[in-house]
Formats: sequence, structure tokens, C-alpha cells
Amino acid sequence: VDLSALPRGVVPPIPTFLDGGRLDEKSYSALVDRLRAAGVDGVLILGTAGEGPALAEENRTAAIAVAVESIGGLPVVVGCGGQTAEQVVRQVETAADLGATAALVLPPFYYPLSQDALTRYVTEVADRAAIPVLLYHIPAMTGNPFAVATVERLHLHPKVVGIKDSQGDFVRFLQLQRNLASEEFVVFQGVAALVGPSLLAGCHDSMCTVTALLPELEMELREAVGAADLETIRMLMHRISAVTELFRLGAYPLPVNFKAIAALLGLGPGQPHDPALLPDSSHYEELTRGLTRLGLLPGGTSVP
Amino acid sequence: VDLSALPRGVVPPIPTFLDGGRLDEKSYSALVDRLRAAGVDGVLILGTAGEGPALAEENRTAAIAVAVESIGGLPVVVGCGGQTAEQVVRQVETAADLGATAALVLPPFYYPLSQDALTRYVTEVADRAAIPVLLYHIPAMTGNPFAVATVERLHLHPKVVGIKDSQGDFVRFLQLQRNLASEEFVVFQGVAALVGPSLLAGCHDSMCTVTALLPELEMELREAVGAADLETIRMLMHRISAVTELFRLGAYPLPVNFKAIAALLGLGPGQPHDPALLPDSSHYEELTRGLTRLGLLPGGTSVP
Amino acid sequence: VDLSALPRGVVPPIPTFLDGGRLDEKSYSALVDRLRAAGVDGVLILGTAGEGPALAEENRTAAIAVAVESIGGLPVVVGCGGQTAEQVVRQVETAADLGATAALVLPPFYYPLSQDALTRYVTEVADRAAIPVLLYHIPAMTGNPFAVATVERLHLHPKVVGIKDSQGDFVRFLQLQRNLASEEFVVFQGVAALVGPSLLAGCHDSMCTVTALLPELEMELREAVGAADLETIRMLMHRISAVTELFRLGAYPLPVNFKAIAALLGLGPGQPHDPALLPDSSHYEELTRGLTRLGLLPGGTSVP
Amino acid sequence: VDLSALPRGVVPPIPTFLDGGRLDEKSYSALVDRLRAAGVDGVLILGTAGEGPALAEENRTAAIAVAVESIGGLPVVVGCGGQTAEQVVRQVETAADLGATAALVLPPFYYPLSQDALTRYVTEVADRAAIPVLLYHIPAMTGNPFAVATVERLHLHPKVVGIKDSQGDFVRFLQLQRNLASEEFVVFQGVAALVGPSLLAGCHDSMCTVTALLPELEMELREAVGAADLETIRMLMHRISAVTELFRLGAYPLPVNFKAIAALLGLGPGQPHDPALLPDSSHYEELTRGLTRLGLLPGGTSVP
Repeated sequence: VDLSALPRGVVPPIPTFLDGGRLDEKSYSALVDRLRAAGVDGVLILGTAGEGPALAEENRTAAIAVAVESIGGLPVVVGCGGQTAEQVVRQVETAADLGATAALVLPPFYYPLSQDALTRYVTEVADRAAIPVLLYHIPAMTGNPFAVATVERLHLHPKVVGIKDSQGDFVRFLQLQRNLASEEFVVFQGVAALVGPSLLAGCHDSMCTVTALLPELEMELREAVGAADLETIRMLMHRISAVTELFRLGAYPLPVNFKAIAALLGLGPGQPHDPALLPDSSHYEELTRGLTRLGLLPGGTSVP
Repeated sequence: VDLSALPRGVVPPIPTFLDGGRLDEKSYSALVDRLRAAGVDGVLILGTAGEGPALAEENRTAAIAVAVESIGGLPVVVGCGGQTAEQVVRQVETAADLGATAALVLPPFYYPLSQDALTRYVTEVADRAAIPVLLYHIPAMTGNPFAVATVERLHLHPKVVGIKDSQGDFVRFLQLQRNLASEEFVVFQGVAALVGPSLLAGCHDSMCTVTALLPELEMELREAVGAADLETIRMLMHRISAVTELFRLGAYPLPVNFKAIAALLGLGPGQPHDPALLPDSSHYEELTRGLTRLGLLPGGTSVP
Repeated sequence: VDLSALPRGVVPPIPTFLDGGRLDEKSYSALVDRLRAAGVDGVLILGTAGEGPALAEENRTAAIAVAVESIGGLPVVVGCGGQTAEQVVRQVETAADLGATAALVLPPFYYPLSQDALTRYVTEVADRAAIPVLLYHIPAMTGNPFAVATVERLHLHPKVVGIKDSQGDFVRFLQLQRNLASEEFVVFQGVAALVGPSLLAGCHDSMCTVTALLPELEMELREAVGAADLETIRMLMHRISAVTELFRLGAYPLPVNFKAIAALLGLGPGQPHDPALLPDSSHYEELTRGLTRLGLLPGGTSVP
Repeated sequence: VDLSALPRGVVPPIPTFLDGGRLDEKSYSALVDRLRAAGVDGVLILGTAGEGPALAEENRTAAIAVAVESIGGLPVVVGCGGQTAEQVVRQVETAADLGATAALVLPPFYYPLSQDALTRYVTEVADRAAIPVLLYHIPAMTGNPFAVATVERLHLHPKVVGIKDSQGDFVRFLQLQRNLASEEFVVFQGVAALVGPSLLAGCHDSMCTVTALLPELEMELREAVGAADLETIRMLMHRISAVTELFRLGAYPLPVNFKAIAALLGLGPGQPHDPALLPDSSHYEELTRGLTRLGLLPGGTSVP
């Protein structure tokens, strides 16, 4: 593994814009361009917010190709997951063939697995991977957490180079960071509201949904941390968290709100993956009010 | 849909025996033979206990082919599930091509879906299915329950012909049975210990794990119900439930214990799907003691 | 412990009718009278459906006194629970002083306890109790389940004479019944829809909410079981379950629906304990429609 | 309500040391002395970590009296909770009579309540309280969360002057702080690892378990925040979090580990409330190793 090529720093998870059920290449590559111009260090595609587990193979393939082409040489991390190691190995292979930098590997999410079984699973995937592997800890979705001891074991595997921790347990996150983060192993904060706290705790690697839509917030936050400008840090921690509040609005799952907000910000179509449904217009109005209140919309934008 | 061909009655979910990671055709077809000889009305293959969601495609295909060949014309129901309708449509297609009778369709199990989205999903699968579709309600595994109102809506679809209810909520089960069970719609009890109560409540359709290993128990139970022989009913309800207790022993997920017990009963190899691990020998000893206590082992059988 | 005095058989948990925040003695004693006349073997008062944990001490005391007076010598079981053994000991003392037959003892419900701690807790309560003690297993409310092994341990205590199992796990219930039910230890089925199945499995002891409001259903069910009249058993299992469906209607907790239905049946005031709120009128209409559909209301009863 | 007397700032929740089942007044007052000397702004007694819901009344009373006497005029906040408003009103009365500053009020924790019912409950308690009331949001223990909208409603009550948020959801916490924190309403961070992030987000009010045992950590953290000394902030955020890790060790509930660690630090007896059990010696050894590794023990302290 070439350490200089590891994904690090600001690596936002981006939405996979769809039009008529197929990747909307134009808005998708425009978003990647915009993020590169904003100074991110890479992108995470096909993660949970990116609807990776719910997309058809052709959309996954197209997304990888477009992201790699648009990112201009920066790292592209690809979410991969299934119920068998074989499925994941094939996804990682496709990602590698298309020029992706690393794979973010979900545990299986139907059966509960022992930590030993989970270790075997990831080991098989990593053994056969042509690109480095990151662990994806998101137990609310998978039911299969990576225990800290399991991460410690898997971190010995030469191709396992990091973890995205999306649980939102700050004690656990700091424990991983203290015990494992190094030149060779990256611990990403996966919860937007905890990116500020994590930066202050010395963790400079994040995969933050808010950043995918509003990259300037995290970029300015990092600058403020560098300058020890506590007033700006305070203001931006609240701002990022306030956007996250909107991601939780109503009974819609995260990716649906994430895309609806992206649409309201003019970034691409709001249509979620099949069979999830577009929120109704009253929900769009509520999101619009929320974004307007935050000064993120000029004051009344058309619904996508 | 040809009503006379609908799966009905005793349709046990069978384990998918593996040897070196591939379907062990010999023990698998022997089990189907044994069940047919015991008088079952069909088999459910590749369900939750059958490790369907965790098996490689070639094993799934082989299992369908062997089951259809061995069952001698009786219905074969095939568990199908994935994150996209497309994946499930392809699985149903394979099942239909290989001669299966019906597909038991899981909801997606990564993202939570609204009931409307779930309805759209199943509708798309059913619209494109060449064989009838049964709904698979097992919220503990999928996080996506089929609300009763959703079942009522989907039951209007001409190709949706039934449901397997594996939740274990007897009130809900009886509600489904009362509101929906008919010549054209089959409501299967999917929880072994509730098969007795369901028979007594007038539901004659079951998919019962215990029956896959010890078919005589359910066959005798049905006979006793027919004869209003309450003493035998009582005895067999306890006996089936006592076997189920063994399925829960230790920290192993159901399919691991299910196969380990099948192995101890001499039915086939105990090896679970990758990456799940074979229980350790002390667990086999505990299962052996349990089976011996129930008179199901002559008294000390060798560990598989 | 005098075994002949143990509560056994049909022991329904009754609602605690309130008027202006105080026990409505008239409707409360009338309900007890009605149940005695219907042939029940005792009553459970101040359980979960009886709002025991949420009632002021004077109401608890009044309820015990009235129930003991009205029941005409039959057993009165009193729900007791708190966070310290001392609190429960005092509640049991009051119950004993007022002539109650046995105490149904909840585990503490704030902190999670180890099974050893739970055993110590119940042991202290039982050691100091002047009347026999029943264990109350209702983990959905307390977060502290009685593991089967713990019940086996506590059943050795001379004053622990039984358990009410309200979990709804039929495998566990049958296991308790097989392993522990005896002349000296009573295993009560606490889930209405499982009373039929439990009778058929040989368990003749129940604490069934439906019976408190419509005792004839369970009395006829038991008669049908005695006569091996499967058709009537089937019909009554469905009927009891259908009433239970109404207990779940809307977002109201069980005691609120339980009392609202009692009120619609003309048994007493529907007002729940403080601070729970009376359902709105549209909910009463929905309950009314449900009861009318079941033939339990003449067709349009006034809202309480 | 006298705003100048509101509890604010560093208000750690302290353990209630017991000896032979009674308050160990000596170590309890010594701990309060020690915290006052360390510069805290008050103490929270009889909270969750302080075993308030599990203590006998005489111990609760003694703890209030001793804390008020030892704290030298600083605020004493008293955890209060029960199943009826009446119970809580009496607890608040006792607290007020003994000179406590404010009551931290739990919702009932047996029945689930609607937000309207919860509002009525707290309103009744606050109406009748002689001292200000803080809301206690700890849904993992009570099952009854205070929705943000409910807090907004209750904050209009003149005697409801704040909230302790122990959920650990940083988005929700910042929302409360932004929307409600004022001269008249205090929002306390109740999760130790989030105290650092909260200070940086402008919230200067905390109730932090770690501080009760090691007050210098939070005092230094606050100083570092005041001085914008990011390196020290980083170091102390990790240190506080690392102590919290030890609170989670093994299968023991928080108060048991909390007291065991207090005992190892020489602060008082480790014996938890009845019926919880003292951890076994191997657990004490593990805690000792953890504390030694953090430099908090000279290297091998005797087990309490």
C-alpha cells in the first residue's frame, strides 16, 4: 500500500443523483468538480448517504467512472457491501478497475455475525482486494458492529488502512483514534456534528455529509481550528449541526432528505433510489423554510 | 395463477447443506426425499433458516435445481431478497426457470422504507414475476415490517398469493388469517412453536423449521388435531417447542444451530455459510445432551 | 404456604376505575362482583393493565380493600413494585394486612440488574413477606427479565409460588410450564391471545385482560377445551385475539385503551391515571366501531 | 425565581457512598468538600450515577442534608423521580426543606407517556415546587424522552429553569442550547465526553461524572478553552473520554463502575445500592490496570 495515496482529510460522502432511474452524470460530475474546487481531499461515493446499497450495478459503475474522471487525481473511496464476501470482492474489483482509490467495506447486514466471523469476512475481502480497504462501522444500519478489539485485529492486515465510524459514540471514536490512528491507518469521523469536536481532539479525517452540499462550512471550520479562532469554531459547529437537523426532518430516511436538500440547493435532482419516494410538497416547504432560516436559500427557491 | 398449484399445508424451510463451500447435493436431496416420504406438501428453500441471503449464486441455483428434482412435483418455494427490485426479479426469474413454484420475497434490509415504498417494491417484483409471490414478514431480520394494511393492499395484486409471518405475534397472525386467508391467499405460520396454536385456530399452512428436521412431529400433530385428540396435541406442542429451545442455545444465530442439530441428527454437514463459524465442541455437546434428553438421539452421537 | 389457597385458574387483571383521581369504589366493586358471578377463580389487581405502578398509595390501599371485600373469599393477587426492596416489602405488607392472598412482584425498573442482583432482591422481599409471592416477568416494561434459570432458582424459595409471564414468547412459557409448574408453583399465562394455546398445552392458569372485561369468552373457551370442541376453541381464540387488537389501537398505551374499552362496555369510567390523557373522541369512535363489529356493543354506545 | 441563584457552570453528579446500607457521611461530605475546594459551582446529588432512584428515603434525606451542609452555600441540585407527580412533589418538598437549590425531575419510567401527558406531569410538579425545577432527559433509562418541542413548551413555565441532557445526541444538544439557553434557562451537558465539545460550542454548563471523581480535568479544560490553548484542550478531551471508557467496562451498570472507580481512587466505599452487587476482584483488577495506565493510580492500589 502506498501511504501517500491513502484517502485522508476532507472526504465528503456525496449523493448519487438520478434521472429517470439512471445516474445523472451532469449534476454528479458537477458536484465532484465543485467539491474539488472547494478544496476537499477526495470523495466517498456510494456510501449510505450515497444510496450505494440500493443502486443497480450499472449506476454504481457509472458513478465510479464519473467520480474518478471528475476528481482530478484525488482519492475516490467507494462504498461496497453485500451478504457474501464474493459479492463484495467483485464490487471492489470493479472499483479498482475503474481507478478508485479505496473501498469502504460494510459487514453483511442480514445475519448477525460473531466478531470472529466478521474478521474472517473482512480478511477474505481484503486478501483479494487490489486496492486498500476501509472498515465501515454503522451498526444502526447493519446490526453488525465492528468491536474496537476487532478493529485492532483487522488493522494488522496490510490492506486494511482505516475505518469510517458513523455510530456517533464519541468515546468509542476517540478510543479508536488514540489506539489506532497513524500514518498507516486513518480513522474517519462519519457523523457531521462530531467533525468539529473530532478536529479539536486531533482527528483531521472526516466523511461528512454536510460538506458534500456545503463544503465551505467544513473548510472554514478547519481554518478556524488552525487559527485557534474559537468564536468561529463555535459558530460553525452550530451551523453544521443545524444543517444536520434538517437531514432528520419528518419520517424520511437520511438519503431522501439529503437529496431533497441537495435539490433545493440547486445541486441536482432530488429523486431518491427506487423504491423510496420523493417527499411530498409540504415536506419540501418545511425543508425550504429550514434552509432559508439558515441563510442558505435566497428566500424561496422552487421545489425540484 | 393456478390456485390448485399454490403451496399450502406443510412446507418446511430446509437447511442448505454445504461441503467445502458448495452445495452438498447428496444430503440435500436426501433430506428433500425424506420430507416427501414423510408426507409434507412442499418445501421452502433458501429462506432465513436456509441461509438464502448469505449464499453464493451458484449454490442458490444448485439448491433450486436439486430441490425441484427431488420433490417429485410438489411445490418448491424459493426465498428471494436483495436491495433492489432488479436483483430480486432476477432471482425470481432463475427460480421460475428452474421449475420453482413460488418466490418468498424479502423486503430490502438496509434502508428503512415507508409502507408506500415497500408496496411499490413488491409490486414491481410481482409485476415482472413468472411465478406467484409470497411476502416474507420477518422484521427482526429486515427492519422493514409489512404492516397489516400493506398486506391487505398487496393481496389485491393477482400474483401476490400469500405471506409467511415469522414475527411471532399471534394477535397479528390471527388478524391476517381472519382478514386475508382464502382460496387465493395463503397465510403461513413461520414460527415453529405457534404451529400448534395456529392449527387450532384454523390455519393449516405452516413453514416450520422443526418439521424440516423432524417431520413426524408436525404430521402427528395435524393428525391429532384432526382427531381432536387433545392429549396428543398437548404433548406435541411441548415437544416441538422443546426442539425450538435448542435452536436458541448459546450465542449462535438460528441457521448455525439449525444446521448443527441437523448434523447431530445425521441429516447432513453442520458447516454454516461463510463467514459464520462452526460452533465449538462444547456447544455440540450441549446440543447433544439436549437432543438426547428429548429422546432424539440414541444416547451419544458423534460430533459432525 | 397453604397450597389450597394459592391463586390458580382464571385470575383476570382488572382496571382500577377512577373518578376525579380517586378510586371509583362502586364500579370497581361491581366489576369484581360481576367477575365472581361469571365464575373466575380470583382477580389480579394493580398490575400493569390495572395501572398499579402509577397510582397513589391511597388508591392502591382502597383498591385492595374493595377487591378483598367484593371477591367473597376468592384469591386477590396484588401487583407490587418499586425501586427498592423496602418499598415493595411495605406494599406487600399493606396487601397482606388488608387480606390479599398473594403479591405479584415486579423487578426494579430504572437500573438494569444482573440475574444475581435480581435474585437477591426478590429473596429479600419474599423473606419478609407475610403472603406468598409471584414473580412478574414483563421485560418490555421493566427492562429486567427473569431468566428461566433465575426463575428456577427463586422457585426453591418457600414463599415464591409462581410467575406471571407477560412476554409473549411461547417457547419460553412452555419451558417454564414444563420445568416448574406443579402443585406448589403456578405459571400464569399473561398474554390474552396465548391463553387458548396455553390451555391446549396443559396450562390452566391465566391472567388475561380480555377476561376482566368479557369473562364469558375465557369461561366458554375452557369449557370447549374440556369438551374437546375444536370448532368452538377456534372461534373463541379468534374472538379473544380480536378484542386484544383493539387494546393496541392508536398510539395509546395498553391501560388507556383498556379503560376506554371498559367504559364503552359500560363497566366504569374511562379516565386513566394521572398524567395519562383520555383518548380523543375520534379514538373512542374507532374503538366503538371495533366493538360493534365484534358484536360487543348494541350499535352505537355513548362515549364515556 | 432568583436568577443569580440558578445552578450553572460545573455541577458534577456525585456518587452516594454507602456503608452497611446507610449513607457514609464522612466520605460523602469529604467528597463535597474536595469538589468545592477544586472550584466546582455546585453538585448534583441523587442523579442516575448517584443511584438516586434506588436509594431508601432515609439515605436520600441524609445525602441532601450532608451535601447542603458541606457545599458552603453553592447550589445543590437533587435528582427526583417516581411514578406519580405526588411522589415527586414530596421529594422536591424534602429537598427544598433541607435547603437544596433545585430539583432535577425525571419523567415516570414505567408507562410510556405522550408528550402532552409528560407536559402535564412536569407542570404539576413545578406548580407545587418551592424550588426551581430542571428537566432530566435520559431516555435510555426512562423510555420517556422530552421532545425538543416539549422542552420549548415547559421552558415557558416560570419554575422550569433548565434541562440536563444525557442522551449523547450532540445535534439535539446544540439545538436545545441555541433555541433555549438564556439567563433564565440552563442547558446542562450530561455526557462526560461531550463536555469539551459543548464548551467549544459555547455551552458552559455541565453535569459530568468524571468531574465528580477527578475535578481538575474539567477545571483545566475550561481554563484551556478560555486561553484558546488547543493542544491542552485536545489532551484533556481524550483524558476525560478515556476515564469514561472505564465506566463502561464489563457488564456492570454505570453506577457500579462509577463507585468502584471512586473506591480505587480512595474517595469512599465501592459498595453499590441494594440489590446491585460489588464487582468481583478480577473486575477491580481490570479497573485498576485502566486507572494505572492513565496515571491516576500510583501503581497498584488495594481493592476496596
